[in-house]
Amino acid sequence: MAGSTFGNIFKITTWGESHGKGIGVVIDGCPAGLALCEEDIQTYLDRRKPGQSRYTTQRKESDSAEILSGIFEGKTTGTPISMVVFNQDQRSRDYGDIANYYRPGHADYTFDTKYGFRDYRGGGRSSGRETIGRVAAGAVAAKLLAQMGISFTTYTKSIGPVEISSFDPDEIGQNPLYMPDSSAAKKAQEYLEDCMKLKDSSGGMIECVIEGLPAGIGDPVFEKLDANLAKAILSIGAVKGFEIGDGFAAAHASGSTNNDSFYITDTGETAKATNHSGGVLGGISDGSSIVFRAAIKPTPSIASTQKTVNKSGENIEISIHGRHDPIIVPRAVVVVESMAALTICDALLLNMTARLDRICDFYKKS
Amino acid sequence: MAGSTFGNIFKITTWGESHGKGIGVVIDGCPAGLALCEEDIQTYLDRRKPGQSRYTTQRKESDSAEILSGIFEGKTTGTPISMVVFNQDQRSRDYGDIANYYRPGHADYTFDTKYGFRDYRGGGRSSGRETIGRVAAGAVAAKLLAQMGISFTTYTKSIGPVEISSFDPDEIGQNPLYMPDSSAAKKAQEYLEDCMKLKDSSGGMIECVIEGLPAGIGDPVFEKLDANLAKAILSIGAVKGFEIGDGFAAAHASGSTNNDSFYITDTGETAKATNHSGGVLGGISDGSSIVFRAAIKPTPSIASTQKTVNKSGENIEISIHGRHDPIIVPRAVVVVESMAALTICDALLLNMTARLDRICDFYKKS
Amino acid sequence: MAGSTFGNIFKITTWGESHGKGIGVVIDGCPAGLALCEEDIQTYLDRRKPGQSRYTTQRKESDSAEILSGIFEGKTTGTPISMVVFNQDQRSRDYGDIANYYRPGHADYTFDTKYGFRDYRGGGRSSGRETIGRVAAGAVAAKLLAQMGISFTTYTKSIGPVEISSFDPDEIGQNPLYMPDSSAAKKAQEYLEDCMKLKDSSGGMIECVIEGLPAGIGDPVFEKLDANLAKAILSIGAVKGFEIGDGFAAAHASGSTNNDSFYITDTGETAKATNHSGGVLGGISDGSSIVFRAAIKPTPSIASTQKTVNKSGENIEISIHGRHDPIIVPRAVVVVESMAALTICDALLLNMTARLDRICDFYKKS
Amino acid sequence: MAGSTFGNIFKITTWGESHGKGIGVVIDGCPAGLALCEEDIQTYLDRRKPGQSRYTTQRKESDSAEILSGIFEGKTTGTPISMVVFNQDQRSRDYGDIANYYRPGHADYTFDTKYGFRDYRGGGRSSGRETIGRVAAGAVAAKLLAQMGISFTTYTKSIGPVEISSFDPDEIGQNPLYMPDSSAAKKAQEYLEDCMKLKDSSGGMIECVIEGLPAGIGDPVFEKLDANLAKAILSIGAVKGFEIGDGFAAAHASGSTNNDSFYITDTGETAKATNHSGGVLGGISDGSSIVFRAAIKPTPSIASTQKTVNKSGENIEISIHGRHDPIIVPRAVVVVESMAALTICDALLLNMTARLDRICDFYKKS
Repeated sequence: MAGSTFGNIFKITTWGESHGKGIGVVIDGCPAGLALCEEDIQTYLDRRKPGQSRYTTQRKESDSAEILSGIFEGKTTGTPISMVVFNQDQRSRDYGDIANYYRPGHADYTFDTKYGFRDYRGGGRSSGRETIGRVAAGAVAAKLLAQMGISFTTYTKSIGPVEISSFDPDEIGQNPLYMPDSSAAKKAQEYLEDCMKLKDSSGGMIECVIEGLPAGIGDPVFEKLDANLAKAILSIGAVKGFEIGDGFAAAHASGSTNNDSFYITDTGETAKATNHSGGVLGGISDGSSIVFRAAIKPTPSIASTQKTVNKSGENIEISIHGRHDPIIVPRAVVVVESMAALTICDALLLNMTARLDRICDFYKKS
Repeated sequence: MAGSTFGNIFKITTWGESHGKGIGVVIDGCPAGLALCEEDIQTYLDRRKPGQSRYTTQRKESDSAEILSGIFEGKTTGTPISMVVFNQDQRSRDYGDIANYYRPGHADYTFDTKYGFRDYRGGGRSSGRETIGRVAAGAVAAKLLAQMGISFTTYTKSIGPVEISSFDPDEIGQNPLYMPDSSAAKKAQEYLEDCMKLKDSSGGMIECVIEGLPAGIGDPVFEKLDANLAKAILSIGAVKGFEIGDGFAAAHASGSTNNDSFYITDTGETAKATNHSGGVLGGISDGSSIVFRAAIKPTPSIASTQKTVNKSGENIEISIHGRHDPIIVPRAVVVVESMAALTICDALLLNMTARLDRICDFYKKS
Repeated sequence: MAGSTFGNIFKITTWGESHGKGIGVVIDGCPAGLALCEEDIQTYLDRRKPGQSRYTTQRKESDSAEILSGIFEGKTTGTPISMVVFNQDQRSRDYGDIANYYRPGHADYTFDTKYGFRDYRGGGRSSGRETIGRVAAGAVAAKLLAQMGISFTTYTKSIGPVEISSFDPDEIGQNPLYMPDSSAAKKAQEYLEDCMKLKDSSGGMIECVIEGLPAGIGDPVFEKLDANLAKAILSIGAVKGFEIGDGFAAAHASGSTNNDSFYITDTGETAKATNHSGGVLGGISDGSSIVFRAAIKPTPSIASTQKTVNKSGENIEISIHGRHDPIIVPRAVVVVESMAALTICDALLLNMTARLDRICDFYKKS
Repeated sequence: MAGSTFGNIFKITTWGESHGKGIGVVIDGCPAGLALCEEDIQTYLDRRKPGQSRYTTQRKESDSAEILSGIFEGKTTGTPISMVVFNQDQRSRDYGDIANYYRPGHADYTFDTKYGFRDYRGGGRSSGRETIGRVAAGAVAAKLLAQMGISFTTYTKSIGPVEISSFDPDEIGQNPLYMPDSSAAKKAQEYLEDCMKLKDSSGGMIECVIEGLPAGIGDPVFEKLDANLAKAILSIGAVKGFEIGDGFAAAHASGSTNNDSFYITDTGETAKATNHSGGVLGGISDGSSIVFRAAIKPTPSIASTQKTVNKSGENIEISIHGRHDPIIVPRAVVVVESMAALTICDALLLNMTARLDRICDFYKKS
């Protein structure tokens, strides 16, 4: 099936393999009139660029975005925006081994089973580089949402056993792990050094906070805002869990502590005294911040010896060499934010048709 | 937006409100030739029927399913299957209060904000009764999957602080909480009695195990099998979290412990020595059991006093009377299973077009 | 595949067979706040009701619509609107013959080939009664569009060789053939009498004019307004052709005569001096009336002897008895109008997200 | 809305403007294992390349296709196939005039109304060059269908008043007008010379015949095969009408002449004695050839003087200079064929899930 398209109104289609000619995305349905240039995209892509710290792959890629269509005189025209990052570091090397065995924790076996064969060079389509298209599109969605005062704060919440215990938004960009707590970041780096010595890798958790989203966004039943966020986040390779608001902790809570009381603010607005819900009630935004978390598994590519099988049906042992991140989490932060932005953007556009009075108003004015 | 449709090939559309004329579902895209009768549906619906224990709402509903189309001579014809459960217990009573204030933890406020007004009788469309359509459709999907040897085991994993510590599948239907551990079930009932005395409610966790699914099902990138399961499960009201395989625990793990080794079985099949992945690699089923969990928040309707606001913009106090479940979890078990069956069924059908050789074979034979 | 759903935002799903329990439709995505009652639906359904003249089937059906959900206090709530017409005239009779052979011009053979068997009673799902769901939904779409000043005039343009030569909108409802020309209607009735004597049937043409649609509706490339109208109209059984504006005549024209000049009206508006385009340029409405035509084939059920085959692979001769329309066209007029209304309604809602400035305005106000 | 995506399973998304960096397409959902190279695409693109005769625009473009993803070791991998044609002939010239007025018969006015502004260079997204993406994708669909013995014959049926009166398939590629009748082609060329002298243009008709399609393809109700073909064809700019089989002539026919009798062939197959239906009954292929026609309007860009308006609201006169086709039809032949191939391919893949017995077979074997 066609699995590389996401969204209903603000719809993206990504393409490309790790060691093919490039990675790209087409955004179809971006409203006309948004000022947009390649720098807007690059700022986002740079947050996931490899080689920025010793905790990420040392592959050399500038990951420069090029916009091929959909912009005229500096603005989106309403027609498809095609963007591409051409791959540079396509070292010609011997892929013979990897073609014939199945790496544990990777999609090698499942791709072969599904399609009969696979592009095994660097993981092909199931490589982390696939997310470049998501991030390029997410940058556009985020810029559009910013026009309406909606903003995203996304960061590493934990790495292995190390969790943040304070929150300083300014700190996030100051450490290579994108943690909002410098002391936790330091401890996490020590933990990662140990992992690397052991030829091992670590998992972690990412949290995303969305502010400025008005109440009323999202749809009941199957298109709940949190359901779509869950799909968006789980669609990122290596994500194994999603929770919104109190999430799994709510399973242990009682109604009296988990319910958020409403109250009238000084300015007469309806607000919630707490935010156990994470900003969504009945699948529709409630005006509080959207707060969700993603659980990321440890990088499956590790240098220590592992048992597996080859295509000849033999049990073998392998150890994976090459350029791999001991931790995916820091580079995945901007991917999580991008998927969230795409989801929110689509929901916001879809919501415009909810009420007849507003539709009539819209057409009277325009 | 049209939020009441789920699936691509095996597509369902649900309709109906808690206190309207009825609740229904249309399945469009069910393959022709499946033997199906109303009893198949009823068996599933009975698992979510109210009034079966003192831990569920005492509302009296037989919830009898009627099939209105799509079946001829006992078999599905390939055309839409329309099913309806007419509401019986529509007590005419004074809804005046509930119309004017917003219950904490409910969708009252968000529906009003989105649509301008709402059907406030019994929660309207955001009532738990909305899931009747899902379960009726899930029964059909599950029966179809059973033809291919795919089966579901779904149960309550925890209620408040009480978690199962043993697993006996035969026990699941033997206690009102659908727990596979009679001793845990007993403790959980005691805990619920305490909740009820305190006019409070409890959250809990549901686990679902899917066996018999061949490797290769699900699609890369945005239509990953686990991403679609996450959306399906989060689309159920009151679900606040989803995890597959080791889930959130994977965030604390290392690659060497989290990776599942492949090995060749005695019969020459490729298999995994462990199942930390929960049966999915790269979004595609890997031949192991699919294992996932859902976190369910406590019932928001509680009898103790709560602070909230009314539509006149005043801070008020309320206490909710009426027929409410102190725990949603046991009745949600079959809803989780239904959504999983619908997701798997759709993915299985979509997978048939993955390989040209199999497509050519298919058309040569037919 | 799931073929019974139409639309993106204003989405309908129809179900039901000719001789099953009933025929229905679920509208998902209808905006909240539209005043709606069963009479609104009935007015439309009555235009396609059988037994109204000697040129339509004499089957006795009141075709009474019942609304089962989605309305509260007389208004749409934004949640799915489920409507049903229960079948009354389900005469129990011997269907043995029809089960075993394939009627020329009908879908008997293609359904059997596709699904392995079929509900042969009265044509099952491929009966003209399937359009009841379309018309019930079309009534809602048309009422919604009327709020924005958009109206439909649909009528029979020709029957067999008899074409209208004058146009009086008030005449349309005055003759059983829905022709806007009483003299042509008289001639057409004479022609039909001849057909009936010869145990034969006649084709015809329907024209639809849509007024009040603002310029800018419809989307470029694959979702052109005329492309979606074409699909909507060809999806009606028996329609064999669609043309917009000058249609097939444009194939014989030259650019200088086919182009519509723009000019500035006395009130300063941009308008077109002619309307060869039929109200659409580049797939987007241009502010002129939308004008399109549908070609309807003759009723395939005729009483004269026909050659065909049976399921045993034998060449046989049949003659079809029973209640059949010698002409489908008059009853199809409201079906064409309904499909047009559904298409326009969906396009109008989709258009709200085309421009960033209007989106920002929308969210500032709401 | 996102209007640049077509198809459900075999899904394409096109992008690009006439004078932007390039034109491209992403195919998502192409089955794995199809041998594919750039030459396969080029063969199709060459059929619509400009500058091949004096009846097409003299713009110089080699229109060379490049495949950027989705192919490994010469075969499709099941992941997105991204293809691009970079624009070469982007003469920098003064577009000032065209930016400020609305060309009759073009989408200038409707784009401005919808989006607030437009990329006016060469028609931007509404240029005929947009079809490059369709043709590149159509080449892939056609190659896939060829594996199953399904083939397409598409040709010019008429140009202005000149219609073919004989049919020689080998002649189609022998004349610049793609007519299967050399004598008609000669007359049509004379007619076009006259048009050019008069600074005028001509419309015409295209016919497409699809052979080898098995019975049973297409879906009832809204996803009828002919309805989807109609949408596909009307989505091509300049197409004003679509008819299948006898089409509009059926509106004048009687049932006894329009019905196609079934009979048993010498080899025991069910077949039709005639093909008035054009190969579709009830929206599902009936095993006969699919035959449909498209009406193409005259090129709106003509050199003679025309009345129109400018953006300042003034009535003006213009005459359009530059590189324009006096007739679109010959170059549109391959576009029509491509859209038909995409539609058939999608329907064929969707049909695989119609019957439970075949699904069970499929999974037992694989």
